[in-house]
Amino acid sequence: MIHEISVFLVVELVGTVAFACSGAMVAIEKRLDLLGVIVLGVITAVGGGMIRDILIGTRPPSLFLNPVYVATALIAVLILFFIMKFSRRCQDLLYSETYEGMMNFMDAIGLGVFTVVGMDTAINAGYGEYRFLMVFLGVITGVGGGILRDIMAVQTPYVLKKHIYACASLAGALCYMILLPRMERDGAVVISACLVVTIRVLARKYRWNLPRIEIRDRE
Amino acid sequence: MIHEISVFLVVELVGTVAFACSGAMVAIEKRLDLLGVIVLGVITAVGGGMIRDILIGTRPPSLFLNPVYVATALIAVLILFFIMKFSRRCQDLLYSETYEGMMNFMDAIGLGVFTVVGMDTAINAGYGEYRFLMVFLGVITGVGGGILRDIMAVQTPYVLKKHIYACASLAGALCYMILLPRMERDGAVVISACLVVTIRVLARKYRWNLPRIEIRDRE
Amino acid sequence: MIHEISVFLVVELVGTVAFACSGAMVAIEKRLDLLGVIVLGVITAVGGGMIRDILIGTRPPSLFLNPVYVATALIAVLILFFIMKFSRRCQDLLYSETYEGMMNFMDAIGLGVFTVVGMDTAINAGYGEYRFLMVFLGVITGVGGGILRDIMAVQTPYVLKKHIYACASLAGALCYMILLPRMERDGAVVISACLVVTIRVLARKYRWNLPRIEIRDRE
Repeated sequence: MIHEISVFLVVELVGTVAFACSGAMVAIEKRLDLLGVIVLGVITAVGGGMIRDILIGTRPPSLFLNPVYVATALIAVLILFFIMKFSRRCQDLLYSETYEGMMNFMDAIGLGVFTVVGMDTAINAGYGEYRFLMVFLGVITGVGGGILRDIMAVQTPYVLKKHIYACASLAGALCYMILLPRMERDGAVVISACLVVTIRVLARKYRWNLPRIEIRDRE
Repeated sequence: MIHEISVFLVVELVGTVAFACSGAMVAIEKRLDLLGVIVLGVITAVGGGMIRDILIGTRPPSLFLNPVYVATALIAVLILFFIMKFSRRCQDLLYSETYEGMMNFMDAIGLGVFTVVGMDTAINAGYGEYRFLMVFLGVITGVGGGILRDIMAVQTPYVLKKHIYACASLAGALCYMILLPRMERDGAVVISACLVVTIRVLARKYRWNLPRIEIRDRE
Repeated sequence: MIHEISVFLVVELVGTVAFACSGAMVAIEKRLDLLGVIVLGVITAVGGGMIRDILIGTRPPSLFLNPVYVATALIAVLILFFIMKFSRRCQDLLYSETYEGMMNFMDAIGLGVFTVVGMDTAINAGYGEYRFLMVFLGVITGVGGGILRDIMAVQTPYVLKKHIYACASLAGALCYMILLPRMERDGAVVISACLVVTIRVLARKYRWNLPRIEIRDRE
């Protein structure tokens, strides 16, 4: 039991680090200062859960009661910042294909885990019967941090325009909702999270995108 | 009684469709993908009520308990998206004066109805004595969805800069607050909502705008 | 006792006026109309407290129950707007070094007072044991209004990129947390708020900034 929780926690922390780094990178690209990098990094990592807690009325949001996620995000952001600050070679590395692939993979893990965590939180808060709400809370836990990051960095939310990001989270949430009554929780968690990761990795490799409308400019 | 509720519901759904279409059009103009169009459309339609529920502490926000509004918005957005996607002629129609006039009228109905609904919700939640709060909740229910739409689309909120938008909602809210203790609710609803629609239609026709300051550039 | 509360209230109102004016100035620069100027001004003044109340679950947010802050902000914004509208000479004055210095000083007072008020609110709401939460609520009360202002004006939040803004608030919050158990509340309030003001004034004079990463453009 303790062993299983530990594995789950490690996976959550991997996701937290990936989300924090994605927020920090956006802040660095926008030329924000150290505090801006920290704030964007941490908010990307814990923002989805904060939105979820505000919606279901958990007071105060759980991130304040269990600071391990904020602390992990903070440490990850600081390490990234000082590597970027003092090593030109590492700066180049961070823009490499390898780094991007690795971050994409970690980010996918975070998306999968956070989606499932969000749904569990909804169930524990007594909303297990509202299926629409449950799925929504899973997706918002997964993508909410990235939305806050993009709003604060004043750029169109990534989730609204590229690759199959929110859709992967949605697929995982629906999968978890269907599996949960039919098998034990651990199996449902693993399958749902793996589904999210698989969709994200394939979406990046084969450049899947949702349809969009090509309009002529009219102005 | 059932008949009256039905009429009210139809009017609410007309407003929902208009708001959803306005969100979807912004998303299409910003070249967002299908998911982005859906998210912006739905959030424009139900976002005002969601902000109101967060402020007064309705948990979870009522949109999750009665999914008819989200479903209506979703269907409206999907129809709009596929019309725009597959018919160049319809694309042109959507940019026509007729379409804009029709949407403006439906949007005005939505603004009027949502403003009144927001105030009723405040009263039902026990805040009938806080007049300032009641009016604010009416206005935020009316304009909040549009604000969320513009924040997520990274453009200055329409409500802050053009035509008499929030002012129409505010006039309707004040009217409803004054009429409610003096006549029966149905009459107050109809008069207040009609006031909002009238102001909006006249504001568009005669290009009413609030004063603004013309400053020289200093940079 | 009454005397002390009055002094504190005056200081709070000075901060409210400064924050409201900073929001109004941003709105005027963005060519928003009168309503936009009012909304941005008021939201800058009371937005930080609103975010805090949403996070800790005060329903409805206290700004609705005690409208003195909204009223003060509204009056300040209206005066500023009509001065700017009708007097070209005053417009020039508003862009002068003197005005900026004065506003910066008032803003620093607001930041200091709001930070302390936010922490007091957290303690009164029963979160005195969660030190991390207490400090966070202090800082968010201080800087949250400015963040909402910048998000609605579609510009990168000032707090993320310039001078020692949030850091001053953070220093004041930590100072208050450390002093509170060791001396009487009034002294702790004064010292903490003065610390914030001092840091802000020095940061402006000596152009302190947090480190940032200079990256080459890669696009």
